[in-house]
Amino acid sequence: MNATLAELAELTGGVLILPEGIGDETSIRGIAALVDATESDLAFYNNDRYAADLESTRAGALLVDERFPVAGPSRALIVVPDPSRAFAEVARKHVYRPPRIRMGIHPSAWVADGVVLNPQKVSVGPQAVVEEDCVIGDGTFIGPGVVISAGCRIGENCRIHANTVLFDDCVLGNHVFIHGGCVIGASGFGYEKTGERHQPIEQIGFVQLDDFVEVGAGTTIDRARFGRTWIGEGTKIDNLVQIGHNAVIGKHCIIVALCGIAGSACIGDNVTIAAFTGVAGHIRVGSNSLIAARTGVTKSLPEGGQYMGYPAAPIGEAKRRLAGFRRLPEMLSRLMALEKRFKDTEGGPADSRP
Amino acid sequence: MNATLAELAELTGGVLILPEGIGDETSIRGIAALVDATESDLAFYNNDRYAADLESTRAGALLVDERFPVAGPSRALIVVPDPSRAFAEVARKHVYRPPRIRMGIHPSAWVADGVVLNPQKVSVGPQAVVEEDCVIGDGTFIGPGVVISAGCRIGENCRIHANTVLFDDCVLGNHVFIHGGCVIGASGFGYEKTGERHQPIEQIGFVQLDDFVEVGAGTTIDRARFGRTWIGEGTKIDNLVQIGHNAVIGKHCIIVALCGIAGSACIGDNVTIAAFTGVAGHIRVGSNSLIAARTGVTKSLPEGGQYMGYPAAPIGEAKRRLAGFRRLPEMLSRLMALEKRFKDTEGGPADSRP
Amino acid sequence: MNATLAELAELTGGVLILPEGIGDETSIRGIAALVDATESDLAFYNNDRYAADLESTRAGALLVDERFPVAGPSRALIVVPDPSRAFAEVARKHVYRPPRIRMGIHPSAWVADGVVLNPQKVSVGPQAVVEEDCVIGDGTFIGPGVVISAGCRIGENCRIHANTVLFDDCVLGNHVFIHGGCVIGASGFGYEKTGERHQPIEQIGFVQLDDFVEVGAGTTIDRARFGRTWIGEGTKIDNLVQIGHNAVIGKHCIIVALCGIAGSACIGDNVTIAAFTGVAGHIRVGSNSLIAARTGVTKSLPEGGQYMGYPAAPIGEAKRRLAGFRRLPEMLSRLMALEKRFKDTEGGPADSRP
Repeated sequence: MNATLAELAELTGGVLILPEGIGDETSIRGIAALVDATESDLAFYNNDRYAADLESTRAGALLVDERFPVAGPSRALIVVPDPSRAFAEVARKHVYRPPRIRMGIHPSAWVADGVVLNPQKVSVGPQAVVEEDCVIGDGTFIGPGVVISAGCRIGENCRIHANTVLFDDCVLGNHVFIHGGCVIGASGFGYEKTGERHQPIEQIGFVQLDDFVEVGAGTTIDRARFGRTWIGEGTKIDNLVQIGHNAVIGKHCIIVALCGIAGSACIGDNVTIAAFTGVAGHIRVGSNSLIAARTGVTKSLPEGGQYMGYPAAPIGEAKRRLAGFRRLPEMLSRLMALEKRFKDTEGGPADSRP
Repeated sequence: MNATLAELAELTGGVLILPEGIGDETSIRGIAALVDATESDLAFYNNDRYAADLESTRAGALLVDERFPVAGPSRALIVVPDPSRAFAEVARKHVYRPPRIRMGIHPSAWVADGVVLNPQKVSVGPQAVVEEDCVIGDGTFIGPGVVISAGCRIGENCRIHANTVLFDDCVLGNHVFIHGGCVIGASGFGYEKTGERHQPIEQIGFVQLDDFVEVGAGTTIDRARFGRTWIGEGTKIDNLVQIGHNAVIGKHCIIVALCGIAGSACIGDNVTIAAFTGVAGHIRVGSNSLIAARTGVTKSLPEGGQYMGYPAAPIGEAKRRLAGFRRLPEMLSRLMALEKRFKDTEGGPADSRP
Repeated sequence: MNATLAELAELTGGVLILPEGIGDETSIRGIAALVDATESDLAFYNNDRYAADLESTRAGALLVDERFPVAGPSRALIVVPDPSRAFAEVARKHVYRPPRIRMGIHPSAWVADGVVLNPQKVSVGPQAVVEEDCVIGDGTFIGPGVVISAGCRIGENCRIHANTVLFDDCVLGNHVFIHGGCVIGASGFGYEKTGERHQPIEQIGFVQLDDFVEVGAGTTIDRARFGRTWIGEGTKIDNLVQIGHNAVIGKHCIIVALCGIAGSACIGDNVTIAAFTGVAGHIRVGSNSLIAARTGVTKSLPEGGQYMGYPAAPIGEAKRRLAGFRRLPEMLSRLMALEKRFKDTEGGPADSRP
């Protein structure tokens, strides 16, 4: 990277504020976090948590927002509405190296006869496997070691990263992005008890991921018992999430790491589910809900609420419960004090314990 | 699929109830969920949660149970004791396409010299690896990208799905089913602290999975420090579960997604452990126990109980605690009201807070 | 294994106590857990949980500590300060078979032109992939099916086990040990909301694992948004752990299975984090902290404390809260009894419920 302060201010639409002796032709050679930055780097500051890092940073220039004191700056400042977003713009323009994707089928890959793809417009990486009856759209990247099982239909411009597995008959839209090590379309977890044995129930459905869905590393999405397990357009799923068979998740949701969505759960659109949250099977979560980390959702939730806790409660109520929980030792003392006083007053025992 | 209503009633042992104008020779062409079904599909209904879907379904025929009102039906009904099970029977007979397994060793697979297997009766998929000294029984399927490390002994009719890893010396019975992306037999997590460093303790044992064990996608089962980590016959483990070294799990258990069973824990037979539950190391969980989701089991549990909560408690007690938790804000108000009244009565301060 | 009791006592520095009729030249042929041991095996006992196993064991010799009653022994005893550690010494010397690593590049592996490695001193397993511009140090083992993406720099004597993925530009020190099925360096989970869509923020950083880091099976560590996600020297991470982008973890930490460390969290040195714990983004956990299982760390923690609960509290306070939680049903009864008595005394209603 090599850009002048003036160019960076123009790129980000920011106001450039310079200390004495520094000109707007000064060259910036890299971007870095506050703690790592050198005099030729650009960093950004938008969160008071990092005030100590700001004190000690050696960054040559800083992206800051309007709350930042700009009088007598000790280094170049570029004032923008959203420093993080502006930093991302600089990264995208000056630093980001798009992944090197080579079109064509790698000689070590194995692609079955009869797979429908244009070998000039698709990338199939080393040691990858594409089984019978698959259809793969132009611009799609199949990474090293990926296994695409029989009958999958994959749209255009998808990226399916290393060592991911797609089992039979998965349907992917366009621009679907699957990180490494995912398992999509394994049989759902369904059994009938016959005597003492658990007999597997055949899982004859499939998984459908709509356009712009993203699936994080190590995440598993089971095929439907029948019909489809379905992730709606634009939904982003983080790492190590489990999605059960026949779950339906709406559009533009965010599901953070280590969540579990049980079978046949139905999540609306624009729902955010923070880490470690579980959603029980066969329930509905309304659109535009926000669910805090570690929530256990055991009953259906209406649209637009914010929930927290186990069992899930509206966030205000959940916080009052947690506040009560934190005060439990004190509450117990107060209860005992009252009992004692009452007993003293009454001249008899106030203790109701058995 | 193409079956008449009469044939479906016979297959499921159900009672066929027809609306006027519909004959028992009417043809059914597919099976589907209520929301997806068309006029030529069979669906099933056994859960009031789906009453709204029942209202709007276009299904041509429904499997229902005896609680369903059958007078003046608007579509064909087949009344059976268990609609879900009957639906599975129809799926198995008319829809299920058994996986296409080709016997033989794929030319892109790598099988070490001296592995004991019958290449006409075993399937080793593309890009798979089978290392030295393995023994693989007839009818067993090793999927694409699977790695079977040295010294594994695998029984008959097992299915080990894509990109799973078995490390050295695993022992599998017959009919063991391992879903994609599992890691079986990695070194256990054991260290000795020497000064500030954690020195790994050699993990020289192995993993044993008995007949009909099933292991879900992305699940990890560590090899024993010595002896074996052992999963008993017929136990079914869901996705993204962690089983620590030297854990012993009995027969016909169910362990749902995102659970963790720590090292040397010992679980009896017929135990069900719901999602997100942790079992601490070196404890015993008695046979026929039922453990609810999100439970933290930190002490041994006797046989046959039902447990919930953190720390785990018998389910009735755990529910009373949760009920108390939900009422904490109210309890605090009531406590304060009592204190105030007492103070008013007494003419002095009732507050015992420090 | 074939060692005399005298040899084992010498190896472990223990005191040998023999029953009548057994000589110190008696041969021991194996090691085993109490429950599995035969008359020719050595076992160990150091935990009262296993008293029942001790009763029934057939072990020919036992490693025990000084608390063990040694008068009139029924089998050979070797008294040592730490039976578990002594057992590990015996295992290391007499039983442990070091993994069979063959140096060289397997013919089925694919290594890009221009990768810097010494093919006589590096092991690249079957079906592995090493992409462009990688540097791999001597003594390093790349297991079967592993994918090393472009630009990774890996030190000496590392072991990267089967089906692991390292994405672009990862930096590994020496003696780094990565178990099977890990995904290191996938894009972090970061989006900007533009209208209703979540636009990915380019993640242009990398992952750095310092010397002697160990990463458990199925664990995922995301690349940094910029700069590095950084795991310090000697830190050991268990299976199925998620580490977010730009997280920094110090030296000699222990992170147990199924934990999640969110983006930009900063963990000090010598921190132990037990299973199922979550650490929120952008917070700091001081060195030498101990965090119990299932803790939710939502605010920064100072050095050297012990924490537990959700939200995290110092362990004494957290235990008092849990004790209160367990007594909630009783507290509610006592509160109601007080209200009733007060009402009786006062001659009026004491109930403050709305």
